[in-house]
Amino acid sequence: MRAVGSVKHVTSTANPIIKAARALHQRKARAESGLFLAEGHKLILDALEVGWKPEMIIALEPDGDTPVAQLAAKVRAMGGDVIFTNAAVMEKLARRDNPQTVMGVFEQHLAPLDTMRAGTIVALEGPRDPGNVGTIIRTADAVGASGIVLIGNAADPFGVEAVRATMGSLFHMPIAKTDMAGFEAFLDRWPGAVIGTHLGGATDIRSLKPREPQILLMGTEQSGLTDALAGRCTDLVKIPMAGKADSFNLAIATAIALYEIRRPFL
Amino acid sequence: MRAVGSVKHVTSTANPIIKAARALHQRKARAESGLFLAEGHKLILDALEVGWKPEMIIALEPDGDTPVAQLAAKVRAMGGDVIFTNAAVMEKLARRDNPQTVMGVFEQHLAPLDTMRAGTIVALEGPRDPGNVGTIIRTADAVGASGIVLIGNAADPFGVEAVRATMGSLFHMPIAKTDMAGFEAFLDRWPGAVIGTHLGGATDIRSLKPREPQILLMGTEQSGLTDALAGRCTDLVKIPMAGKADSFNLAIATAIALYEIRRPFL
Repeated sequence: MRAVGSVKHVTSTANPIIKAARALHQRKARAESGLFLAEGHKLILDALEVGWKPEMIIALEPDGDTPVAQLAAKVRAMGGDVIFTNAAVMEKLARRDNPQTVMGVFEQHLAPLDTMRAGTIVALEGPRDPGNVGTIIRTADAVGASGIVLIGNAADPFGVEAVRATMGSLFHMPIAKTDMAGFEAFLDRWPGAVIGTHLGGATDIRSLKPREPQILLMGTEQSGLTDALAGRCTDLVKIPMAGKADSFNLAIATAIALYEIRRPFL
Repeated sequence: MRAVGSVKHVTSTANPIIKAARALHQRKARAESGLFLAEGHKLILDALEVGWKPEMIIALEPDGDTPVAQLAAKVRAMGGDVIFTNAAVMEKLARRDNPQTVMGVFEQHLAPLDTMRAGTIVALEGPRDPGNVGTIIRTADAVGASGIVLIGNAADPFGVEAVRATMGSLFHMPIAKTDMAGFEAFLDRWPGAVIGTHLGGATDIRSLKPREPQILLMGTEQSGLTDALAGRCTDLVKIPMAGKADSFNLAIATAIALYEIRRPFL
């Protein structure tokens, strides 16, 4: 058990703690420190509720017994540190105008790939857009999927934009990362269906008989599934379209497909 | 018929044409000029293909008979002007690093609300996020919906981020804007179903019998449909969920609902 966390008052954007926290906007600093930023009171509360302990929160100096003051007391009791500061520092830290009144610094947690053995797993081959990754984590949570696998050179789920888009689901959903060889080895052991969406897919996704365990496998925004992974699917499906658009946004395609294959369970 | 467009060569970010084009990142300048920016070769070609005439394109000076040079010739033949410039000006204009090699300036076109009389119409009550608005326009196109209605204080579909998210569907989909009174008058004349998604909706959206003409009515990201509009729905539906997330992202909820109510037509 950690001791009660400390409280510090910081007024300078040059303070080293603030500079280190601000650096977490960069992927490199997140990789080196193993930490990430979560913005806002609601997101931090969501994290605490499911047992994530913040290393630190950085908040506007509260005026009385505000929700932020109560959050700070909770964080300290859990062993996290509290930094109170001013609006200028919060803007610098958030890298935008009108920032949230509190930012949390958390340790990144990933799930080992081998813990994913049941239910519906969403596997994403190298998604580029952090907003898509965050939105897919939120959607997977909302339909009761069991986990997310990020394959290869994927956007970082712990980036600020991705975390924001998860709306708290980052703290609920098991997320694993692997490279192509690791994912292929995982598929070798996978006992269920591997459903890949593919523009050339022969099966209408609505005609699938959903059966867990199942993996929904989605390719990149630009070029879809690679042939290597398409070749490992038990079902290559298409999402029928109409109109003039030639594709869905990745997060939208994932949501429509997920909703179809989780249909009997909702 | 317009005369062949002019060609100018610009090297300064202070050039008044560049400054006016760059101002189109701001909603106010878009409202005053009636113009908007579309980034990139593919998006501009999509526009030309369906008959949108650019007022102007601004492009990196091409080196030989490149795709951009061919695009410029096409634009001039349609009566649009061409500005060739350098990388520094393109970055300034795009307001980001690694900008596209060409930006188009187009006139905004909205559809009169009364032209929307058939098929499936997506009506959005005051959506705030431009990415959501753009993604919903793309999704509506991809499922063969007939039009989009933006009600009240909605994000501008002609903002750069929204236009980018439409991936060209902005140029295919009829989009109307109206205030609450205008939309209520439209509903008075609407002959079909008005399907509203609502956390308190009694009907599972999957149990609806889709029948066009139908309107899918979605509330804001923050607070869903207002009571005023919920009261005008023929069907208040819910999208069943599982897991710990308490809602879907607006563009995701719209996509899942749209896919359900367009199901028999896909």
